[in-house]
Formats: sequence, structure tokens, C-alpha cells
Amino acid sequence: MPSERTSLHQQFASDNYAGVCPEALHWFLQANQSGHQPGYGEDVWTQRSTDMIRELFQTDCDVYFVFNGTAANSLALAAMCQSYHSVICTPYAHVETDECGGPEFFSNGSKLLVAEGESPAAKLGKLTPDAVEALVTRRSDIHYPKPKVVSLTQATELGTLYTVEEVRAIAAIAKRRHLKVHMDGARFANAVAALGCHPSDITWRAGVDVLCFGGTKNGLPVGEAVVFFDRALSEDFAWRVKQAGQLASKMRFISAPWVGMLENDTWLRNARHANAMAQRLYAAIRDLPGVQVLHPPQANSVFVQLPAPVIGQLYARGWKFYQFIAGGGCRLMCAWDTTPEAVDAFAADLAEAAG
Amino acid sequence: MPSERTSLHQQFASDNYAGVCPEALHWFLQANQSGHQPGYGEDVWTQRSTDMIRELFQTDCDVYFVFNGTAANSLALAAMCQSYHSVICTPYAHVETDECGGPEFFSNGSKLLVAEGESPAAKLGKLTPDAVEALVTRRSDIHYPKPKVVSLTQATELGTLYTVEEVRAIAAIAKRRHLKVHMDGARFANAVAALGCHPSDITWRAGVDVLCFGGTKNGLPVGEAVVFFDRALSEDFAWRVKQAGQLASKMRFISAPWVGMLENDTWLRNARHANAMAQRLYAAIRDLPGVQVLHPPQANSVFVQLPAPVIGQLYARGWKFYQFIAGGGCRLMCAWDTTPEAVDAFAADLAEAAG
Amino acid sequence: MPSERTSLHQQFASDNYAGVCPEALHWFLQANQSGHQPGYGEDVWTQRSTDMIRELFQTDCDVYFVFNGTAANSLALAAMCQSYHSVICTPYAHVETDECGGPEFFSNGSKLLVAEGESPAAKLGKLTPDAVEALVTRRSDIHYPKPKVVSLTQATELGTLYTVEEVRAIAAIAKRRHLKVHMDGARFANAVAALGCHPSDITWRAGVDVLCFGGTKNGLPVGEAVVFFDRALSEDFAWRVKQAGQLASKMRFISAPWVGMLENDTWLRNARHANAMAQRLYAAIRDLPGVQVLHPPQANSVFVQLPAPVIGQLYARGWKFYQFIAGGGCRLMCAWDTTPEAVDAFAADLAEAAG
Amino acid sequence: MPSERTSLHQQFASDNYAGVCPEALHWFLQANQSGHQPGYGEDVWTQRSTDMIRELFQTDCDVYFVFNGTAANSLALAAMCQSYHSVICTPYAHVETDECGGPEFFSNGSKLLVAEGESPAAKLGKLTPDAVEALVTRRSDIHYPKPKVVSLTQATELGTLYTVEEVRAIAAIAKRRHLKVHMDGARFANAVAALGCHPSDITWRAGVDVLCFGGTKNGLPVGEAVVFFDRALSEDFAWRVKQAGQLASKMRFISAPWVGMLENDTWLRNARHANAMAQRLYAAIRDLPGVQVLHPPQANSVFVQLPAPVIGQLYARGWKFYQFIAGGGCRLMCAWDTTPEAVDAFAADLAEAAG
Repeated sequence: MPSERTSLHQQFASDNYAGVCPEALHWFLQANQSGHQPGYGEDVWTQRSTDMIRELFQTDCDVYFVFNGTAANSLALAAMCQSYHSVICTPYAHVETDECGGPEFFSNGSKLLVAEGESPAAKLGKLTPDAVEALVTRRSDIHYPKPKVVSLTQATELGTLYTVEEVRAIAAIAKRRHLKVHMDGARFANAVAALGCHPSDITWRAGVDVLCFGGTKNGLPVGEAVVFFDRALSEDFAWRVKQAGQLASKMRFISAPWVGMLENDTWLRNARHANAMAQRLYAAIRDLPGVQVLHPPQANSVFVQLPAPVIGQLYARGWKFYQFIAGGGCRLMCAWDTTPEAVDAFAADLAEAAG
Repeated sequence: MPSERTSLHQQFASDNYAGVCPEALHWFLQANQSGHQPGYGEDVWTQRSTDMIRELFQTDCDVYFVFNGTAANSLALAAMCQSYHSVICTPYAHVETDECGGPEFFSNGSKLLVAEGESPAAKLGKLTPDAVEALVTRRSDIHYPKPKVVSLTQATELGTLYTVEEVRAIAAIAKRRHLKVHMDGARFANAVAALGCHPSDITWRAGVDVLCFGGTKNGLPVGEAVVFFDRALSEDFAWRVKQAGQLASKMRFISAPWVGMLENDTWLRNARHANAMAQRLYAAIRDLPGVQVLHPPQANSVFVQLPAPVIGQLYARGWKFYQFIAGGGCRLMCAWDTTPEAVDAFAADLAEAAG
Repeated sequence: MPSERTSLHQQFASDNYAGVCPEALHWFLQANQSGHQPGYGEDVWTQRSTDMIRELFQTDCDVYFVFNGTAANSLALAAMCQSYHSVICTPYAHVETDECGGPEFFSNGSKLLVAEGESPAAKLGKLTPDAVEALVTRRSDIHYPKPKVVSLTQATELGTLYTVEEVRAIAAIAKRRHLKVHMDGARFANAVAALGCHPSDITWRAGVDVLCFGGTKNGLPVGEAVVFFDRALSEDFAWRVKQAGQLASKMRFISAPWVGMLENDTWLRNARHANAMAQRLYAAIRDLPGVQVLHPPQANSVFVQLPAPVIGQLYARGWKFYQFIAGGGCRLMCAWDTTPEAVDAFAADLAEAAG
Repeated sequence: MPSERTSLHQQFASDNYAGVCPEALHWFLQANQSGHQPGYGEDVWTQRSTDMIRELFQTDCDVYFVFNGTAANSLALAAMCQSYHSVICTPYAHVETDECGGPEFFSNGSKLLVAEGESPAAKLGKLTPDAVEALVTRRSDIHYPKPKVVSLTQATELGTLYTVEEVRAIAAIAKRRHLKVHMDGARFANAVAALGCHPSDITWRAGVDVLCFGGTKNGLPVGEAVVFFDRALSEDFAWRVKQAGQLASKMRFISAPWVGMLENDTWLRNARHANAMAQRLYAAIRDLPGVQVLHPPQANSVFVQLPAPVIGQLYARGWKFYQFIAGGGCRLMCAWDTTPEAVDAFAADLAEAAG
């Protein structure tokens, strides 16, 4: 089995390298201690976690659990657009760059329209009302897919955040142009934790129609929630989920851990910790010579430009992290269980390598 | 939380009402004790369980873990046929009756050709070489989807089994007609346990090209294995899995439990127990007045015709089971953790109601 | 080039063996005499033929021209249901038997639910309210595609007709069950001609939501009209048509012939002629020894059971016709240009062979 | 009906504004004079035109007629890649910009990878080996669709040409990277006419696997040919065409005009005329003040930058042409029937407006 040392050196590779948090595990085990229980979501844990999500968002939303983020995003988008429609997103959007054409597959051909741009927001991985407007108005003929959805990632793939006002402004232009608003919330917890707002403020109150509420990166073993604030969009969605191979037969093992995640705000505590580790890392390395932080971290990742030999030395010491993801440079991702010790050890090694 | 009594009364509803077996749970927990580990199947447990499956089948097959049976079957079939092809199966086949059109969706339109028939084998939920031949030769024009795959369920949805010879005979006609052979093995363990053959004998040695090897019904929390014996069929399958939202980011939590399932033949022991419970139930109720067992159980389910008032009384006492699934009548399904006490209690209640 | 004799002997093979009627050809040539004209339906002939269809049906319907019947039906059905929905039809329905899975392909997986049955109407190739009701109520769980559309063929593939009352009764049950009503009108003209009703009576006034109005079998070179009476269903349909490769760049050559077809009721005159030829044929052969007409012809085809040697003799004399289509037996199809001479020659040869 | 004047002023709008050339029309009418003839391509004209295409290319290729260019390209690409694969093309490619996501739809989700670039070739709307190599090597992980096809447009959407050497060089890199080569030949005739090479030299001899051979823009009413030089790629393609609603029942009206197009090299004569008109136009306007031809025309279109007031005056005089297509500026497209008079009239009006 893997050594502890290896594990420590992998703490900045990805938040999906992290394990299951104790609270989620507790409920997973709990769900296993009750013998035979109904399948396909007819169990008490699915009911309970669903209710908890409704309470969390203070609205009567429709909630569906699916297995992963690609499925959550793809099914949500497919529910919002037909094959001849299109989805507006940034060039960094996970739906565009890392789902192997999942959105196109599930929608049977919808096109992703990528908002290129040099605005400050664009450089931080964010859409703007102007970018949306430009793409919507560029063409309106039937020879090109018709824009139907705006997809935001919150927190973004660059570890940055949309403010409540920014989401509102984009949603306003979306409504005016008859577009629906989708939020890829694989790191929604990190965003809410960092913004300090109520989760409803950054979603339906700001005009978001569907949220893919991520749990896996934040401490679950498997499973994301698709949350429909616009319930008209979820008509027959249960059939869609089943057909798409996303309905768990032993659903309780997906949903019960969500109880642990939501109870006592574990989800926020986990996210705050990850965010804090990113800040700690940022503080420790920002002034090192040769180290260029690409932008101040707002959520749980730090993007940094390092000289090639420095990268080589870090790799040689066993550190694992990815380059060229999203905004470029080295991506240092913190998770709910990243330790201060790992942060300090990485910073020390970097200081030595860069020095 | 659900009471123990409720749980006991649900022991014949479905094998996916069952929980996680201790061996699978052990490895799930094990995988969680190693901190940060690579995602998307780059971990040691995925490697190990994959190797174990190769060893089990004594051949260098390609193995992919996906989330559930609908996905396993649908992706496997999509890898074997194009949208204008068709799949031959029985009217009871899970792919036809209980996957909400998943095979059609993933293949972008392949048609399922249902082999109707009154032969003894057909009544036991099985395909025959003649039925396959009849469907293949019925039409060959381009106005109808071209048959490309034969799909067998082993054990069948009626709790019956294909013998090694039966699989061989169907595979022989399939090869002659240029069809590939798919095996839906949601209850493959129960079949192997009952047949007492080597798992390779009933699969690739008999002519099966792709097996969907079920784990969930047999004691896993989530996750099935798609096993390609014909490796030409798995070209780029990893991309297909990813695009279809079936690649787990924290894959170890899917694959590590498989280690527990395969280690020391837990999978067979679990299956043998479920089969034995079905036999115990069969022995206890077969001669009760008014009770008509539809066919002798070969795997882990008993199908029985009961008078309506008797069904009503059983329901009133809290027993849960499904009617009208597959072959009709009442389906009494046993699982890896169905207890002799539950069997005896059910039989006693049935005796009283029928008496 | 083919001889006249061959052509005569092929007059009962299919109505799509027929050529272009003079009125359609006139407008085809007309459209070609005006040099450069706008593409993609922005031309005057598309406008005119569309208006004529609206006037014909006395309602403000949406009209789209596509290339053939498979496309018309498939796109119409795809506009009425999602991949996890299903379409109710008869076992003889062209969408089920002769479009190579087109409906499944365009809808990305919708299932066709075939209404089996032994009722008199079923034997004549027709759906009944009871058959629809039975399929809708059979299952309502999410493990099976949800019925969303009833598809009628008018005239049916067996050359029979739905009366206005029959369509109304089916549409009534459809509305009650929240199903949409699709009419495959590949031979709609023959139906209207035979029923002697107004085209609106048998469509939207009876509850039909979308009609695929066939032109090719009735004298056009290529091109069918999809007519949306329920205009909510045609939202963004122009994009759907374009994406599906069904938007003609030189649309005028599809639409101008429709002007000829609709002007002066050519479409009805053509259909009446075809129907009359079927009646003439029926009268000439119904009492011949060994000849068993399967049911009295109502539109433009005669289905007849003949002894194998008789069929052999007819083939030997050069006659071409198909067996085993739809209701079985030999299908003798008449077209807008089938001649009385051909009918009489066929009847004479049959009389001789059967005698 | 439209006036002649209007028609003249529309001669530069699009080559699909043009009518049917006399030779194609002759055979269309011919095919209509033989009464009843077999459908679905079993007729003599389909056989003959198919043979003529094989002879033209001097190889035993597979030929399928479909209704339009979107369908031809989309079906060809779908035959070359699965949903999780990708297609490399330029940002101007018709498959990317003007088929409303047709390629994505028919392939059930394949992604188009657009080769951005500032090389001279890129500015002329052409792919280069380097651009292909860059896209192929950019990523190889399973989180992104795997490149499988290179799609070239010949002549390009900018009215430029790939030389035989350029095609060969791209095909060479494609083979090395296991990509198939698709050629969108909507204006293939114009390319061959301008290059003066044999049609086989610029296709299969240079490494092209599948050609979409356009006929509509060059004088047909409707219908393109998909030509498979790599016959392994056309396995079961007839079923694909049928399912996709692209099999004409009265096929002869699609294929017979191709006889007229191919006989006596009409296709080349038509194309040469269109090319010559573009050169005549170019010569007449290239030196006018304020007129900036974007690049010398190589096929049948001239792209030109004009001052807004000049454009306004031309529009006011009734001229119709499109802006912002492909390379920007005004696109002046010539067709097989564009007249010298129209060219001269346009040039005169432009001279006056610009003067």
C-alpha cells in the first residue's frame, strides 16, 4: 500500500486526490448498518439529504444525486438545451476542457461557445455580461447553434470567484436574451466559504437556474447533486438520469454521506480549511525569488509560474502537481484534508529550490 | 433510522436492497487511510483489482470500472454496435425492460430485437440458437437495423442459468452470423456459483466477447466491471467511459472494494449463500397449498404464483417483494446477506396465509 | 434506358416507383427559369407553397419541407419527445419497420412501444384507444421510457383508413394521458381522397398535433412537409432541420413542385386516381379462384394471398410486387400514374395463372 | 414570379442561388420519362452515375448519394469517428461555422478542434501540417476528445486552394498520427478546374480517405456524393444513410442529374466558367480606389473590403452579396451561370460608387 510520505507529497495535485471526510464516512457506515433498505433513492437517507439541501437553499428546489461532475454538468445542460442549441462558457470551463465532450454527448450535439477575451475578468477565468452579449448577438441565423445557456463555474477553474453582483449581472443579460443560467459548482463550497454569503444569494436569488453542487472534491467518496431552482427544467429529469446510467441502485451509499456533509455545516468547514491552506501557501511563497503567483488565490488553489529547473527539483523531491491546467503555470490545489505540515514542507522545498 | 424489523421484511425485495459486505467495506476503509492518492484509476487499488480480474479469468482482458449496470451494459453494447445496428435479446432482458432506453441512448439509436418464443428455454428467460438465427435471417435489407450483437443475461432475469453448452451453441451461431456476444452478468457470481464451472468456461472460452461483471448486487456499494475478452472492441473505451460520465475521480472507492470481493473468493462465497437461501426458501414453500413455484430456482431468486389474498396478507405483515417482474408472479430475491431466519419467517408467514 | 414494358410491369411494386406528375414538373421547371434566387427557403415558391398548405388546412400552422418521409417522421417525433420518452405505434408502422431506427436516432434513443393486439382494428393495421391506454398504463416507473406520443399512419401501411371518429377517439385518450398525436401521412392524400372529408377534419380538428404530409409517393420527385398544428412544438424547429441535414440549399426545387401539387387540387386528383386503380384491381381479382384478398382496399393498395406457384408465374411474366410487407401476402400498390391498362393486364395474367 | 433584374443582381450572393444546368436537367427529365422505376437507388441512373464517378477517380471507390452538403459531411465524419473523438479543421470550415452542429449531431458528440493560426496558409483558410501536429500533440489524456480526422475544404471557404503537395503533406502527417483525411468538396469542381490536375491526384492519390463531392453548387438541383476511397470506412454506410433520413426513395431524381453533370465533363466546364467569372470580376475591380481585394481569387469567389458607404450604394442598387462570411469583407461568389454581363454591371456600379 502507498506510503505516508507519498501521500503527503501528493497533497497539492488535486482535491480529488483527497479521501472521505469523517462525517461523510460516518453516515456511509450508518447506512450500511440497517440491513436491507430500498434502492433507487427510496431510502431515508436520500430523503433526508434532499430535504437538507432544500433547507440549505431556503427554497423548494428539485434535487438529484448523480455519480460525478461530468454527468452532473452534462445532464443539467442537456435538460436546458436541445442538440441544435449552444452553451456559452469560458475557454477554461471544465465542460469545455475536461469532460471529453460529455456535454455534447448527452445533449446529442450542443455546441459550446467559448468566450475569448482579454478583459481582466476573462483573464481570471470569468465570463462577463459583455462577453455573453457578444456571443449571443454574433449570429442569429439557423446555420449556427442558437445560444440557450450560460454556464458559470463557481469557484472558477482558476481558483477565482464571481461576486454576487457579477452573477446577478450575467444572469440579467441571460434573462434578457432568453438564456438559462447553469452553475458548475464542483467547488461551490469553496466559493461560498470564501464569499461569506448565503448559498442562496449566489445561486437562485442571483438568477441561477440549475446548480451542480459538488461533493466529491470536498470530502465525499462519490456523488454530486444537481439542484434545479427552476423546477420547470427538471420535468422528467428522473427518467433522464436513469437512462443515462446515473441512477444508483444502492443510492443510500451516495446520499447518506451527503447527510454528514451538510450536518453542522461540515461542507463549509471543509471548504474553509482548503481555502485557508491555499492562503497559507500563498503567503509562504508569494515573495520567494523567481516565484510568480499568477493571481491572488480566492478559493482553494494557487497558480504560480516557476522556472523549469525549480519545477524539476520539486518533482525530484517527490512533489506532485499539475502544469498547464486552465490558466497555465503550476496549479497547487488544496483540499479539505491538506495539512499545514504539507504546506510548510512544500514552501520550504520551494524556497530552497528557488533560492 | 429504519428499524431492524423493517429491514428483515425487505430481505426478498431485491439484492440491491442489501448492504456492503464486510470484505468490500474493509478495502473501502483501507483505501481511505492513505491520505491523498491519484484519481481516475491511477491508484494502486484499481491496478490490483484489475489484475485480479485478469487472473480470475486467466486471460489478458481489458477491464473498466463503471458506476452501475445500466451504464456497464449500455457502454459495452455501444462499443459493439453503431446506431443503425441491433441487439438480439429476450423479452425479459434487463437492457430491454429496465434500463429506460439506456442502450438506445448510449448507442445513439440501436434497436433491441426481442426474441419472442414458446420454446422451453424461452419460457425460462433464455435465448436459443434458433431464436437468434430467426432474428438474424428475418430481414437483411437496409430499411431495418442490422443485427450485430447477441446479449445474454447470466443468471437470467428469471433466476435461471445458461449451461456452458448453451452459451457455446449461441456463440457459435453468433460467430457464423458475424454477431458479437455480450453477457449481462449483473448476477454472474450467482451463475458461476451455481454452475460450479470456472468463470472462464462460461465466458471467453465459450465465445463471450464482453462481460458486464456485476458487483453491486453481490455486496459492493457501487460499481460494475466491464470486461473485454475481445480486446479489439475496447479500442478507445477509456474515452467513451470518460465522456459518458462514468469515470470516477476518486476511483479507488469503486475499485478497492473489488479487491475485497475477489480476495479469497468472497464473490463466490456471497453468491453461494444467496443461492442457498433461494434453495432453502424453495424447499420450504414448494409444497404449500396454493403456492405454485413457476420454475425451480437455479440462482438466487424464486418466482412463485400466489393467490391474491395470500399476497395481501404477506404485505400486511410487512413483507416486501415485487410482482410482475420478468416472468410474472411474485419474485422472491435472495442476497448475500439474506438470513436463514428471514427465509424461515417468510415461509412460516406464507404457510399460515396459504393454509 | 429501361423499356416501357419493364416499366408497365413495375406499376404495382411501390408508389415510389412512380415518376413526377406534370403539375409538379411544371413548377419545378418554372422555378428554374428565374436565374439566381435565394436559397434555404427564402424564395417565393417556398413562401407560396407554405401559404397554400396553411390555406388548405384553414389554420395558421407551421410548415417545414424536408427531403423524405424518414426524416419527416423522425424529426417530428424528436420534436415531440426526449430520449427517455416513448412513442406508441402499431407493429406495422413505417417508423417501426422501415426507417432503420431513424426515430431512435434523431431522438437520441426514444423507444417505440408497439401495440400488439387481436382486435379487428389491430388486424387492419390501426391503433385503438384501448391499445393506447393499455400501453400508457402498463408501467409508470422511471426504469422504462415514458410514453409521450401516439403515432398514427393515415392511410395505414395495410391500405386501410382511420375514420374521423377513430382519430378523434385516439386523440381524446392521448390528451387525457398527456400524449401528443403524430400522423405519418406518407399517403395522407389517399386517405383524404377516400374519406371524402376536409383535410382539417382528419387532422387538427380531430386532435392531431403534427402531420407529416407526404408528397413523394403522390407525384413529387423529392420532399415532404412537416405541418405543426400545435405551434408550440415547432419552437426552434428550423434549427433542428438544418442541423439534421434536411435544409435544402436550393429549396425552391423542393417547394415549387408543391405549388403544382396543391394548385387545383392536383394532390387529391392524383390520390383519387391511385385509389380508383386499387378498386379496379380489387374488383378484377377478388373472385378469382385461389385469390384471397386479405381485406377490402380503402386507399391505394390491395393485399392478397396467392398460391406460391401463381406468384412464381407472375414473377416469370415480369410483374414486380413485394411480399411480406406489413400485413403479409402480396402487396399490390397503385400510384398516381398507374394505368388501367396495367391493372387489366395484371388481372388477366393473374386470372390465367390462377385458373 | 421574380423579375430578371432581381435575378441578375443576385448573381454574386451564392452559388446555391443558381439554377439547374441544362445537362443535369436533361437527365432529370429523362429519368422521368420511363414510368415506374425501382426506388432507393436500384435504378439504372444510380448505377450509371456511380460507375461514372468510379471511372472519373480511376479507382473502385464506394459512392453514396445524399441530399445536401451538411448531411454528406456529417455522415462522412460520423463514419470516421466516434462520439469521443475529434475532427481537426480551420476556423472557417463549413462544418464548424455553417452546419448548425450537424457533425456533432450525427456523430453523437464529436468535437471540432479548430486550428487557430497566423501563418500565411492559415490566413488563406488552409490547414497546415504544423497546425495539425500542434492540435494532435496538445493533449493525449482521456479527458479530452481524441483527434481522429483531419477535414480539409477544397476549394476553401475563402476561395483558395490546396495544392496537390499541400494535401499530400497534410495527409502524411495525418497517417503518421493515425488520423483519417476527409475532404469537404462542396466546390471540389472549382478546385480541380483551377488546379488543372486529375481529380484522383488531389484526392486518394494524395491521401484523402473520403471526399464529399459537391454537385448542388455546380448545377444540380439537390444531391451530393460521398465517395469512400478507403472502403473499410464505408462498412454498413448504406444503413447509416437510411437511418439518417438521407436515402431518397425516388433516388433516380438525385442520381440521373449526376449523369448529366459527369458526361462530357460538364462538371469541369461549369466550374471553369464560375472560376473565370471570378477572375473577370477580380480584374475589373482590383485597382478601383477604396477597393481592397483580400487575396487573389483562386476558385470562384472574390473577397473584398469595401468602404461602408460603397456597400450601401451597391445594396441600394439592388445588388445582393454577403458580408462577414469566412474571411470577412464582402464575399462575391460566382456560379456556373453567372454572366459576364452581370460581372461587368457589378464592376461598373462598384466603380461608380467607389469613384
